[in-house]
Amino acid sequence: MSKNDENQQNGSLTSQERRTKMSSDNLLLSGFQDFLPERMLQRNALIATTRSCFEQFGFLAQDTPCLERAELLLGKYGEGEKLIYSFRDHGNRHVSLRYDLTVPLGRIIKTYADKISFPYRRYQVGMVWRADRPGKGRYREFMQMDADIIDDDSVLADVEILLLANYLMESLGAQAIVRFNCRQILDALVEVCGLSVDDGVNLMRVIDKFDKVGKSGVLAELKDAGFTTTVIEKVSAYLEIGGTNDEVLIGLADLLGSASSFQSGLKRVSAIINAIKGSGDQAANFRIDQTIARGLDYYTGVIFETTLVANSDFGSVCSGGRYDRLIKHPDGRQLPSIGLSIGIDRLFSAMESVDKAPSIKTTTQVFIVNFDDNAIAEYLKLAGELRRSGVTVEIFSRSAKLAKQMKVANSRNVPLVLLMGPDEMSQSQAVLKDMRTGVQQVIARSEITSAVLQMIDPK
Amino acid sequence: MSKNDENQQNGSLTSQERRTKMSSDNLLLSGFQDFLPERMLQRNALIATTRSCFEQFGFLAQDTPCLERAELLLGKYGEGEKLIYSFRDHGNRHVSLRYDLTVPLGRIIKTYADKISFPYRRYQVGMVWRADRPGKGRYREFMQMDADIIDDDSVLADVEILLLANYLMESLGAQAIVRFNCRQILDALVEVCGLSVDDGVNLMRVIDKFDKVGKSGVLAELKDAGFTTTVIEKVSAYLEIGGTNDEVLIGLADLLGSASSFQSGLKRVSAIINAIKGSGDQAANFRIDQTIARGLDYYTGVIFETTLVANSDFGSVCSGGRYDRLIKHPDGRQLPSIGLSIGIDRLFSAMESVDKAPSIKTTTQVFIVNFDDNAIAEYLKLAGELRRSGVTVEIFSRSAKLAKQMKVANSRNVPLVLLMGPDEMSQSQAVLKDMRTGVQQVIARSEITSAVLQMIDPK
Repeated sequence: MSKNDENQQNGSLTSQERRTKMSSDNLLLSGFQDFLPERMLQRNALIATTRSCFEQFGFLAQDTPCLERAELLLGKYGEGEKLIYSFRDHGNRHVSLRYDLTVPLGRIIKTYADKISFPYRRYQVGMVWRADRPGKGRYREFMQMDADIIDDDSVLADVEILLLANYLMESLGAQAIVRFNCRQILDALVEVCGLSVDDGVNLMRVIDKFDKVGKSGVLAELKDAGFTTTVIEKVSAYLEIGGTNDEVLIGLADLLGSASSFQSGLKRVSAIINAIKGSGDQAANFRIDQTIARGLDYYTGVIFETTLVANSDFGSVCSGGRYDRLIKHPDGRQLPSIGLSIGIDRLFSAMESVDKAPSIKTTTQVFIVNFDDNAIAEYLKLAGELRRSGVTVEIFSRSAKLAKQMKVANSRNVPLVLLMGPDEMSQSQAVLKDMRTGVQQVIARSEITSAVLQMIDPK
Repeated sequence: MSKNDENQQNGSLTSQERRTKMSSDNLLLSGFQDFLPERMLQRNALIATTRSCFEQFGFLAQDTPCLERAELLLGKYGEGEKLIYSFRDHGNRHVSLRYDLTVPLGRIIKTYADKISFPYRRYQVGMVWRADRPGKGRYREFMQMDADIIDDDSVLADVEILLLANYLMESLGAQAIVRFNCRQILDALVEVCGLSVDDGVNLMRVIDKFDKVGKSGVLAELKDAGFTTTVIEKVSAYLEIGGTNDEVLIGLADLLGSASSFQSGLKRVSAIINAIKGSGDQAANFRIDQTIARGLDYYTGVIFETTLVANSDFGSVCSGGRYDRLIKHPDGRQLPSIGLSIGIDRLFSAMESVDKAPSIKTTTQVFIVNFDDNAIAEYLKLAGELRRSGVTVEIFSRSAKLAKQMKVANSRNVPLVLLMGPDEMSQSQAVLKDMRTGVQQVIARSEITSAVLQMIDPK
């Protein structure tokens, strides 16, 4: 088997690709990623912020295995099923790498319902696998971060998930709009169009492309699909509704008010808007958007997408909705649920697109230069004092020339360098150099820890 | 395929097992684990402490995919190879779930050598998979935490890895002994026994069982394996050496001083001991133990194991050593390296065995009772203030009876409950109940955040 069959599948190699192929023995699978420290740090910073937001909203961490019995996943993902990594394990069990974190959540509820206190607010951060064609920002192994509230049909749960999406973007320092809709409003459109359930689903699939193809694109596709002029006119009117949240609701009532499902949708959306207004959060960040459709075989109530103000073309970075028929209690009850999902790689790309990616470059704060192998006990002693004070320290292990070591310290982006050569040692002092400013000062040995703490986190 | 074929492979089901099988539809694969929030929190606390220790020693985080090309892993693990999960992916590539974090590290060095500043101190936390027979504390999917220094043959690197093992156990609040040996001392024993390389490897495999079977067990097994009386006598004398580190070194010199490899081992071990003594760390936590052998086809210098003082029977919770011939630079050089590895599940069991497992039960600090669905905007406003001050908050979403809500709050182990019923609302105040003490107090609405902060983290 060729090592670069991915490239070969896409046709002949470019000369650049051929050079890469020949110059290295790169065994990394296509669609998979390595994370060297600098990118890992940025990624970890995003994950830490997200986890912290989840926890601030009262969600608790949960985990499930990466491998599941294939029978758990089969029949759950429709077209997606062909992207599931499946194989026979050593015991001839048919097993699969998890495709998302929601189906395993369903298994958790089924297995441990008696141990869980409902409503169950859990979050999970974990890799999922999809044998999709790799592309820019599209990987075969990627990290999902999900927060869900299980067994909760309240307006409060809807609002908290929407507020969480906004709070997360705020915590990441990016301005975003949470655009939401409600399944019952879409149902009302299907109803006033006089469509069957199947035709309704097809209609929604086309409307869901509105962000990408615009109104004319949607209407053209509907025409191609054989929808009647009456339907196309109603959809056109539907897509044209806009303005403030109140204006949108009035527009929707004019068009859909006669449909039986409209009132329940309107009631829910109004309650959500009122709660958001009263909560003190920036109500302007939340917008009713009747063009959002999302997976209709899945969601049953509120649905939403979050887009960056500075780059709405990027698409949604955090989305989800209410799914009241997916999770079952072992006693047979369907548990009304709502959740949101974030793909960390997508979020990372989005933050980069608006120059908001975390800029952290290292976790090491102090680099101790190694002047003399015979002095390592002293370096270790100093490092021990600093580490026990919470400072992160690397002692350079080679007694290379000073210039070489400073070059290494520089390449590692450490903020502080400690120099303790024979002269400094004999006078019980050290030189502390701030690599960010270039300023260096002589510090008494006994004052080093407090000086370092002061320079790391000036009060 | 049966859902519980694991049990069936082990013979007929017990009545207990049959009940479990029939009463639930448990699809969890045998040898795999779910983590509900309480255990997840304890596990996360252990991981966070370990990560923090790694970072304090100047190690930076790195990550690699869970799936690798099988050709990377094949031929690297000897007998272990049959435990690798392998399959053909959708592109007919032969792929494997990673078996450890060291072989992927080797790939990283090979692929990105030009982007890495050496010595490279990296740590990695990640799942690995082994299709082993599941047992108490033995899983097929488990988390490894590795810290390694690549391209560094210094005594300092040896010492830092040993100090890190000690520092980690100290940070976890458990007293432990870091027992270490050196490959050259074992080589010297093989030499004075006059054994071939192959016989030497077999000898070491038996000696490595010393912790489990004791001296008489080792000698009996050597006899069964056909080793001569002379060899058995020398091994007996070798195993009897004990006392302080200095006494052990004198005993080893008496027995092995004539062997050519002994002096280099002695020199290295002495340098390590001197550096540890001078570092100010508790030197008593480090002990030369000539009975430690570990994988001889792998390690080339220092080798070590860490055992709990309160439960040495548990075996090693953190181990590793120097491996100078495993990692290659793309220019062909072997990069001298040393590292340590911790299995989180094993560490967790060990901490539990000495009552040192983290006792954290929830991350949620405040539970807001829901008296009235019409008040949710006010609850959301209050929660928003608290969350923005760093407090983690759950608003209960059902307007159930107060007693029911207090029962839920209690089951969730939240330290604080906020009660804001119609009376409190009308007087702009709330009742704050400390669930740890049962004490409750009336607080003005404007003072709630500061009161909560004070009760969570009293200054």
